Amino acid sequence: MMNTPDIKRICIIGVGLIGGSLARACKKNLPDITIIGAGKNSARLEIAQQLGVVDQISTDFAAAVKDVDLVVLAVPVGAMQGVLSEIADAISPDTIITDVGSTKGSVMKAAEQVFTTLPANFVPGHPIAGTEDTGVEASVADLYQNRRVILTPHATTHPHAVQQVRALWQACGAEVIEMDAVHHDEVLAATSHLPHMLAYTLVDTLARMHDKREIFRYAAGGFRDFTRIASSAPEMWRDICLANQDALVEVLKLFQKDLQTLITAIDKGDEAVISDIFTRAKQARDQFCETEEPEPDTAGI
Amino acid sequence: MMNTPDIKRICIIGVGLIGGSLARACKKNLPDITIIGAGKNSARLEIAQQLGVVDQISTDFAAAVKDVDLVVLAVPVGAMQGVLSEIADAISPDTIITDVGSTKGSVMKAAEQVFTTLPANFVPGHPIAGTEDTGVEASVADLYQNRRVILTPHATTHPHAVQQVRALWQACGAEVIEMDAVHHDEVLAATSHLPHMLAYTLVDTLARMHDKREIFRYAAGGFRDFTRIASSAPEMWRDICLANQDALVEVLKLFQKDLQTLITAIDKGDEAVISDIFTRAKQARDQFCETEEPEPDTAGI
Repeated sequence: MMNTPDIKRICIIGVGLIGGSLARACKKNLPDITIIGAGKNSARLEIAQQLGVVDQISTDFAAAVKDVDLVVLAVPVGAMQGVLSEIADAISPDTIITDVGSTKGSVMKAAEQVFTTLPANFVPGHPIAGTEDTGVEASVADLYQNRRVILTPHATTHPHAVQQVRALWQACGAEVIEMDAVHHDEVLAATSHLPHMLAYTLVDTLARMHDKREIFRYAAGGFRDFTRIASSAPEMWRDICLANQDALVEVLKLFQKDLQTLITAIDKGDEAVISDIFTRAKQARDQFCETEEPEPDTAGI
Repeated sequence: MMNTPDIKRICIIGVGLIGGSLARACKKNLPDITIIGAGKNSARLEIAQQLGVVDQISTDFAAAVKDVDLVVLAVPVGAMQGVLSEIADAISPDTIITDVGSTKGSVMKAAEQVFTTLPANFVPGHPIAGTEDTGVEASVADLYQNRRVILTPHATTHPHAVQQVRALWQACGAEVIEMDAVHHDEVLAATSHLPHMLAYTLVDTLARMHDKREIFRYAAGGFRDFTRIASSAPEMWRDICLANQDALVEVLKLFQKDLQTLITAIDKGDEAVISDIFTRAKQARDQFCETEEPEPDTAGI
């Protein structure tokens, strides 16, 4: 059922954890493909080349995307539009473009702004994988193994382009799903962006207490797990907040309302309300979470 | 510096994860001590005995605490007062009492109610260790290895009793710290009880969305880590909420206020405020968390 993608040359713009792991996965699973790593920081690119993650490197995006079959935008969502502007005139209409951004509406809007209409060869994508680490040094070939990749093709996306991007991710071990971009952004606001907001806020709340050293000293293993995602890159998450503003604010308000219900119940000593919330939550988590994810050691994006 | 406790017989009331792990740790590190496991469910007690966790078992608390040197109350905080009432008339004034409750003010209040004044041989305690699992089957001998145990002796606690309880925990591999009970309850409200409230509320918020199956399907590893503590026992956490009501509500309100600041910033697109929160949080977590805890695989209480 799985087709090998008909791709000889890939340009990955942004060779960090996500782009670097895709490059490593391609080298492992599709060894005939040539990978050009592009970025603005030549010292970082040289490290990627020395590590054997990419075959060629370039700081000139327009030059790097010439004569490639596929361009992967693996930069923070806030940088997508700038990168698209740099490659817009140079890229062949036959070249497929995809991205790995955590928000899809904003990236599609950026592409529309740059190209006037969404290019038929642009396949927006989002691999649901990652760790709180960053940089090409943290990249691994199996990051996408058994992970889900969501593609959000638009009405005029060329089916061949979708099929090629799908085949590429499948070759890297991922399960590929298609959904509407708006739906993607709502789902990810709930399962990924909201938890990050809570983790960042919790750690910041505690860090601003006067006895913060004492506070963190007595934090146990549960606290460390709970706050792991607060060690994620602040700039990347600031960009995600701004890129998914509406869906994120909506789900934050929903959470805040539910938290207020719990606070009121604790304040009043309302055992029944407290028990209901905790029991429903435990049931849902036990039911939905433990059976889903095969690898317990990766934090997610 | 470490003294072996001068204890021959221990009665552990409540042989679950925490009590069972203490029993196992004693058997490993202080093999001459006889351990009597007490509880209300004889079938569960028999499992504990079959597993070799305790030497003797009893469902009669008053009988079980006779002729022992130390009684450990390892029941949920909401059950402490009832257990203390059952043993009050039978226990020798020479027998040391300690507990493992997650809140200390409430347990001390319960002891005061039962004994009129706090007994000089009562040493309130709290091992900062645990997992989201429950029951004697989940107990392990090294649960307290390199973990902190907080003791909150009161003004009239006998120093010898504190020294014995300290020596017991140290023999089980723990680092023992003394602090004021009020301070304990404030610190734990921030580092343990608040994160549990956020995890329970988050999972419940998501579980009540109409497309909850879809929502949880796209939750990645970070979500699983973040919500692990929402799989903790609901009854135990309801009790903790009620036992630490004031400190918990105070820190919940502080969090709620900080979350509102972030929501407003995201809504307005205020990059500077968002960046400040995320950057401070990442710095605090990187600084305080990663260097502190040696074992990454235990969720905490």
